[in-house]
Amino acid sequence: MVERRQPILVSEAVSRVMNYAKLGEKERVSLTEAAGRYLAEDLIAAHDVPAFDRSPYDGFALRSVDTQGARFDHPITLEVVGAIGAGFVHKDTVEAMQAVRVMTGAALPSGCDCVVKFELTEESVDNGKDLITIKKPFETGENVSFQGEDTKKGTILAKKGTYINPGISALLATFGYSEVKVAKKPLIGVIATGSELLEVDQPLEDGKIRNSNAYMIMAQIERAGGEVIYFGQFSDDFDTCFNAVKEGLAQVDFLITTGGVSVGDFDYLPAIYEKLGATVLFNKVAMRPGSVTTVASFNDQLLFGLSGNPSACYVGFELFTRPVIQTFLYNGTPHLKHIKALLGEDFEKANPFTRFIRGQLDYDVEGRCIVTPSGFNKSNAVTSLAETNVLIVIPAKTKNNERGSVVDALLVEEVQGSEWPWDKVVLSYR
Amino acid sequence: MVERRQPILVSEAVSRVMNYAKLGEKERVSLTEAAGRYLAEDLIAAHDVPAFDRSPYDGFALRSVDTQGARFDHPITLEVVGAIGAGFVHKDTVEAMQAVRVMTGAALPSGCDCVVKFELTEESVDNGKDLITIKKPFETGENVSFQGEDTKKGTILAKKGTYINPGISALLATFGYSEVKVAKKPLIGVIATGSELLEVDQPLEDGKIRNSNAYMIMAQIERAGGEVIYFGQFSDDFDTCFNAVKEGLAQVDFLITTGGVSVGDFDYLPAIYEKLGATVLFNKVAMRPGSVTTVASFNDQLLFGLSGNPSACYVGFELFTRPVIQTFLYNGTPHLKHIKALLGEDFEKANPFTRFIRGQLDYDVEGRCIVTPSGFNKSNAVTSLAETNVLIVIPAKTKNNERGSVVDALLVEEVQGSEWPWDKVVLSYR
Repeated sequence: MVERRQPILVSEAVSRVMNYAKLGEKERVSLTEAAGRYLAEDLIAAHDVPAFDRSPYDGFALRSVDTQGARFDHPITLEVVGAIGAGFVHKDTVEAMQAVRVMTGAALPSGCDCVVKFELTEESVDNGKDLITIKKPFETGENVSFQGEDTKKGTILAKKGTYINPGISALLATFGYSEVKVAKKPLIGVIATGSELLEVDQPLEDGKIRNSNAYMIMAQIERAGGEVIYFGQFSDDFDTCFNAVKEGLAQVDFLITTGGVSVGDFDYLPAIYEKLGATVLFNKVAMRPGSVTTVASFNDQLLFGLSGNPSACYVGFELFTRPVIQTFLYNGTPHLKHIKALLGEDFEKANPFTRFIRGQLDYDVEGRCIVTPSGFNKSNAVTSLAETNVLIVIPAKTKNNERGSVVDALLVEEVQGSEWPWDKVVLSYR
Repeated sequence: MVERRQPILVSEAVSRVMNYAKLGEKERVSLTEAAGRYLAEDLIAAHDVPAFDRSPYDGFALRSVDTQGARFDHPITLEVVGAIGAGFVHKDTVEAMQAVRVMTGAALPSGCDCVVKFELTEESVDNGKDLITIKKPFETGENVSFQGEDTKKGTILAKKGTYINPGISALLATFGYSEVKVAKKPLIGVIATGSELLEVDQPLEDGKIRNSNAYMIMAQIERAGGEVIYFGQFSDDFDTCFNAVKEGLAQVDFLITTGGVSVGDFDYLPAIYEKLGATVLFNKVAMRPGSVTTVASFNDQLLFGLSGNPSACYVGFELFTRPVIQTFLYNGTPHLKHIKALLGEDFEKANPFTRFIRGQLDYDVEGRCIVTPSGFNKSNAVTSLAETNVLIVIPAKTKNNERGSVVDALLVEEVQGSEWPWDKVVLSYR
């Protein structure tokens, strides 16, 4: 009467999904639009940085050889033959016993090999000539930022798939990218199913709840770097849902449905996959929450059948949909960022399946990461999702996980992510 | 000849700036536009969650009292008088020896006080009547999600100033916020100064560099939750820069300039503040990089005079401008997120001033945070900014900071931030 499904390991489920992950297209955007996107090509230094020898201070550029005899009781005097600010070049080659006043960032004048800071000189004027007096010797190269000292031309500064943070924006500007090739965002369709769902602006009715999953998933898609197209919410009616899925698929790269994947009387997604001719990759995963998460492939598209239960929906997205989106964006580390952390409180429940517990990451005074379950932890607890910034992994077949024990944790806010598998040991557990 | 400035402590500088921080206005946006913004009002549960007693499983709702005599060798039989899916309500009160077939999420029918999962029942039909047989007793409340079990009406679920992550989006939907009051983004003007600056699309010239600071700062502003208006880049010319600053101020909440704040021959910002009649809060901070960072107030506006040096510019923004932006967004923890971490490598330089070193945060297998300086660490090293996700704080007057010692670190990517002061001890150091 009730369909019996065979659960597969989380690691196996992720592998099956990732077999269908694909790289997306590239598009050009302006540098100001590039922030928060992902590089579609390696960022290579187009020239040395600095591109020329320059002064890192305000001072006088000169020839170190001229200072070799200088001492406190035997000062030497040089003539100041020019003055340049950053952005300017001194035209003539500087000769013996000459100096050029230079501001921070100015190109080192030809002939000079060191810079002396203002405070180590005394300035004077004699007979209309500007002079400086120096009381100690300087070495060649002293106070010079040499060409290529920071970065050599040709260095790969960031690989494709790198999230464009403010530092990357600065690099792109440095090397002249007024336009940048970024990964095109995958278009992800969202369909919510469930006769219990009210629209957000509808008043509460007995037996019904407002549709929170669709808005949560849309925000998760955007956080993961995708673009959303929302097709709306539908009652549990086979034909309505089938048509919504079929029409939705035609417009998107990947399609997410929420609800309808369990084995209840009104869970129509399994039948919809069948009528569509989609291949079900799995429909039961050895995890909590989200054990009924279903993923199917149809041509080169993936259909993510997430649970109607908010926590299960959340976890299913982060484990299975996020890496597909991030792969589309060329990120070679597309999975949730994996860390080890100390469990912040006892977790005593037995685990037939691996648990992904919503939690909060804190840091203690000794530099350790502490992860603590977010309060009430029934899988329908939408409120605990608000404070979640980490999923705590409690392996299957364990119990009495004690406060202070080292556990695996997955950071949901971290943009660059981790490679797969996070940790074979943990995710192979049953 | 060279102006002597008196450095103040970082903590003092932050305090002076924060005296001028102000709360911004509120605006209504649609729920889908709210993701990534900050709540302008506390989010309060408008009703209990769940709003009614409901079934967390597929099964049969019934009266526990009817099952009290049930045993394996003494099954009891109930009549199934209805079936409801999620979103529906069973109209009649369930009487003795009756049951209702319920799907996950369905409202518990009146009269029932527990739910029995399908797999613990046997179904049959007798004389046109649907029956179930049960072989064990159940308790009142068993398998029921009670009204208010997750959240009670009136609970504050998130305070104003909270970043709207996917979990908050779900909560907003749950409580019917099709529109959300969010903090209006402060409008931050950016002016780059420096005769050495080329536009991003200009070819390199001897002695010149492309303007990377403006694009970096614009990305930092957006990351911090502000909105950017870019006024362009200007050569080191007093009148040009003065007019740009004066006209810019009239259009923004806060104004950032890059360059021109040092004591070089072409550093005009000090004179500009004077002509404008702005009050300089400080022009020298006991920190590296960024010691010449200058902040001035003009009416109720702040002018952030950041260094033209990329690393100094970056750090100056994160320490002084970010908390002003985040306060405008109602965030009560507006400063960079502060953690303790282990230093990943020896840092042997002496520190006359507190250093904020660009670095990377990693995690070790024992749950500890490891922070490592990002390669080459001269203050002009724009390339190291690309991989920076943390600023490592090395206190003044220390040297030989050893690998493995516990240091303070500030997370630049973390949206919710920390209170001030991060840690009085560290930031009071000289």
